[in-house]
Parts: sequence; structure tokens; C-alpha cells
Amino acid sequence: MKINLDDVVSLIKSNDNFLIISHDNPDCDTLGSAFALHYSLCKLNKKSKVICSSPFPQKYYYYISEANFDDFIPSFIITVDVADIKLLGRYTEEYRNKIDLCIDHHVSNTLFADKTYLDEKASSTCEAIYDILKSLDVCIDSLIAKCIYSGIATDTGCFRYSNVTSKTHFIASELLKFDFDSYQINYDLFECKKREVLQLEYTFIQSIEYYFNGQCAIMSIPNDIIEKFGLEPTDIEDISSIPRRIKGVKIGITIKFKDVDQYKISVRTNSDIDASKMCSEFGGGGHKAAAGCLIKDSLDNVKSRLIDTIKMYLVD
Amino acid sequence: MKINLDDVVSLIKSNDNFLIISHDNPDCDTLGSAFALHYSLCKLNKKSKVICSSPFPQKYYYYISEANFDDFIPSFIITVDVADIKLLGRYTEEYRNKIDLCIDHHVSNTLFADKTYLDEKASSTCEAIYDILKSLDVCIDSLIAKCIYSGIATDTGCFRYSNVTSKTHFIASELLKFDFDSYQINYDLFECKKREVLQLEYTFIQSIEYYFNGQCAIMSIPNDIIEKFGLEPTDIEDISSIPRRIKGVKIGITIKFKDVDQYKISVRTNSDIDASKMCSEFGGGGHKAAAGCLIKDSLDNVKSRLIDTIKMYLVD
Repeated sequence: MKINLDDVVSLIKSNDNFLIISHDNPDCDTLGSAFALHYSLCKLNKKSKVICSSPFPQKYYYYISEANFDDFIPSFIITVDVADIKLLGRYTEEYRNKIDLCIDHHVSNTLFADKTYLDEKASSTCEAIYDILKSLDVCIDSLIAKCIYSGIATDTGCFRYSNVTSKTHFIASELLKFDFDSYQINYDLFECKKREVLQLEYTFIQSIEYYFNGQCAIMSIPNDIIEKFGLEPTDIEDISSIPRRIKGVKIGITIKFKDVDQYKISVRTNSDIDASKMCSEFGGGGHKAAAGCLIKDSLDNVKSRLIDTIKMYLVD
Repeated sequence: MKINLDDVVSLIKSNDNFLIISHDNPDCDTLGSAFALHYSLCKLNKKSKVICSSPFPQKYYYYISEANFDDFIPSFIITVDVADIKLLGRYTEEYRNKIDLCIDHHVSNTLFADKTYLDEKASSTCEAIYDILKSLDVCIDSLIAKCIYSGIATDTGCFRYSNVTSKTHFIASELLKFDFDSYQINYDLFECKKREVLQLEYTFIQSIEYYFNGQCAIMSIPNDIIEKFGLEPTDIEDISSIPRRIKGVKIGITIKFKDVDQYKISVRTNSDIDASKMCSEFGGGGHKAAAGCLIKDSLDNVKSRLIDTIKMYLVD
């Protein structure tokens, strides 16, 4: 059942002992949302803890390290930035049908939770969290501001994408009144790259295959790249944005090896092509301009199935 | 003489027939400032025209093409985003000692104009222009909003850099209430690259030389690259940001061939190193984190002179 902002406020006020769950392979939007909410609940004298199927990436320790987990038995379970229960990774089965509240902004949300606060107009789940915290009268501080800012920056490509609204900038304006180093966050998130990652990106670029007169670009990431170069997954998390950046490309696809005959597909689109709809044909989802799915097949078949699907979107 | 916002408003109100001059090799901040001011002056029933030593780059025609030049004899001359009279290019001599008002945000401004409105805290000259237009009670429309937004986005790396403040985001929030496609502007400015530019960047990255245990990275751009690949100068305008992005690099330098034994140097710094001060040692200037200069010498000498200078900044 979908609920509104007032309902969320009532639910949070009338409950305690919150377990907040981020999605698997977490980014700064799911973790920023989780920790902003966690720190706020602590301020409201409620008990709360954050969990995630994957380890918290070291890169985000600038706010995670300050987390303070309470020892309690959870009685109210919230997911943040989770569009589908299967995105809970190894927690999927344990928490299936046990999520009390889902706070999200993905148009593809499957409404798996008992109650869902879905703000599809929000650039990020952190933007929705900001509204919730304001309605809860939480006194935002620089740590909470840093969490929310990181999530908004992540999901908007630092205010570049089409999901940015006047409200997104207004919230950023409010957050920057607090004392934290937004430049450092942006540098870490978007600018700073290891030498070998820069080299690798250009190796990937060399391998891009173009289809439909250059309207579609497909980039494949070999399976052993992370181990071979001693990288962390977060080192190459933004490579999915590369194919779309090439002039003339309307659909940019990145194929990442996940397991034998299992590939993680990231779709980024320009113009009016709906990436979320395209990915839903393979059981995935996301946003209009950025979505993903998992395809279980050989690499050659994955490519040809993608191309068959893309054909219909480019003809339309 | 430095003047304040009220003085600027009085000067503009009490004059007419404005000539607005952008700096040479214009970017979106100088052109956005010039055209936002130009359109606003037209709204105030004043005559105005914009000139620039270089041709207006085609890339920015989304707002320039709508310009409407009046035929009149200028009686009040304004420069926008011009830190030094020599940045007027071929207009330098013609307008030396003839600039009535300079509107700028560069800490290195040489105060060459009769009166200077210098907002060093502004992320961009466009941010200062926004304040001026609000004080002039100009009714901002989507075309003016687009001009100002483009300049702010350009000078902040789309809200990434350390010059972004709460006010910068507040202005962006106000601008996005008007009907224009900020995503398309950001895509054109920051994302979209020709295939050959992506390939070229890779070649440049291969050529980077590292000094002082990787704290300084120097990238050289060969002299015939633009002609050889049929590019426009704007195609490679943001390459100067590449060396600074490499993990561990505190000073990122790009050396671009300008003429025989003349090299254009771009300096980008992380941490507290003052790029503007460093460039001032070679007669240049700019901002703390991004500055430039022109060095007339052989390439080898340019490099060794830069390294000698950098040494002092890294030891400090």
C-alpha cells in the first residue's frame, strides 16, 4: 500500500527499534538515506541500526564510520532506495514479506513492502528522506547533511541529470549551510581516479561496439578486471555512464560479468527512450534514463538479445 | 576603483548604449554573463550589444543565436568575466583605458577598468550577474535563466568544485523554475564527447608525466591535434581537468601548444595549493583551484620552469 508523507511521520513517531536495510552493492543514495535516517532516529531518542547485504564500501566511511549501532531486537523494518525485495541480496529470503516500510524513488518499485512511501519525482531517495526529516522536525546537523548531500549528488551525477529539479537545488542550498566539505565528497565520488582505472576506462572505450548507425553503444567489462588490477568494485562504479556520453549515442549499454553465464546490464539513455521499461523486459528496472537488469545467458546471446530489444526502442 | 552592488545598479540605470565585451576564447561564464546582461538591458529599454575577440563557439548557440544586436554608438563599455585587459584579445589595444565597468569574480583581477564590481565569493561571474539583475528588478525569463545557469554550471564543473556555496545552489534553484532544459545544457557541456575526442584523451593520458612521487601530473597536448582530427577548440576545452583527477595528484598541469615557443598552461590544484598565485609567477592568474598562464619558451624549458616553481609549492 502506498502511503503519504504524513503517514510516514506517524509510523516513525509511533514505532521504535528500527532496522534500516540498504540495497545490495550499496551506493551513496541507499547508504546516505539509511544513515541520515539512522542518525535522525537517534536524535529522536529511538533505537536504530543499518544493515546491508554487502560490506559498506570503504569509500563511504566518511559518514559510515561515525555510525553507532545499538544492541536491540528490531521491531520495525525499513528499506531505503530498494525497488525490489531481491535487491536485498543475501537478506532477501530472511526479510521477504517482513518489510514494514519502504522509502524509495524508483518508478519501477514493486511495492513489496507492507507500506511504501514512493516519491517518483525525487531525484534520489535522499531527497525523499530530507522531506521526511523536515516533517519529523529533526534538527539536521552537518553529519546528516553530508549523508543526504552524498545521495543526491550520486543519483544526479552531481546535479547533471534530468532528474534534477528546482527543489533538488533548494535542498542542496539548505544542506550547504552546514559545515561539511562538499568539494571533497564530489572529488571522491566523481573526480578522483586511480591511474590504472583511468587506463582501464580507455581500454573499455576501445572495445565499444556500435550499432544502429552509432545510436547504440555497447561496452563489455571483462570478468577478471577487478581482481587483475587489485581494484575495489567502487573504483569502476561509474563506468556505466561512458557509452551514453559518446556523441550520437541514444542508448548506452554496459555489460559486466557477474558469474558464469550471468551478466549485469546497465542501460543509460538520452532523448526519450525509457531505460526502465527496456530493462523490465529482462526482469530489471530503475529510472527512465538509467536502469539495469541481470541476464543469465552466454555473452553472445546477451548481446544479441539486447540488440533485438533495442531495435524496437530505436524504431519507435 | 572597486564599487558595490548599489553603485552598479545606479551606473546601469543612468546610462544607455552599452557595449558588453567577453574575454577571448570565450566560455559559458563570460558569454552567459554577457548575454544575460544584454537581454536584461533590452528589457529595460536600453540599447546593448555583445562583442568578443573570438568567434562565438557554435556549441553555445542555444542562447547566442537569439541575440538581437542594435545599431548604435556605444557610450558605456562593460567587460564581463575579464580579469585582465589583455584577455580582450584583439580588442585589447582598442579598449585599453576605455572600460567603464568591469564585472568579475576573479581574485586575480587587475582592476584595469574605471570601476570594478568584483565578487570574489561568487562561483562565477554569472552568479554576480544574477545579483545585479535582481537588484535591477529585471524580470528574469527562461532565456536569461539559461544564460546564467550555463555560466554557473561551467565555472563550478556542474556544482562539483569548492567555489560552490549554499547561495550558488539557491540561485540554481530559482533558475530551474524557468522552462529550459538544464539536462541538455549539462549533457552538451560536460558529458557528450565525439568518439575521436575520447580516443584522443586516452592518448593524452598515456603521455602524462608524473613528478614528486605522483603529486604533480603534467599532460602535454600536441600542436596539431585540433586540425588533424577536425575538431573545434571547445571539443577539448575540459581536458585540463584530467591530470588533477588522478589519485594522489595535488597539482595537475596541462600544456597546450599555442604558437612556436608559446604554450598555454592550465593549472588545477587539489588541497590548499594556490593555482592563481603559481600562475601569477608567469604573468597569469585565475582562481585558487584553477588558473592559467602563457609561457614563451621551448617545451622542454616550459616544463622545467614549471617543475622548479611547483617544487616550492609542494615543499611549502
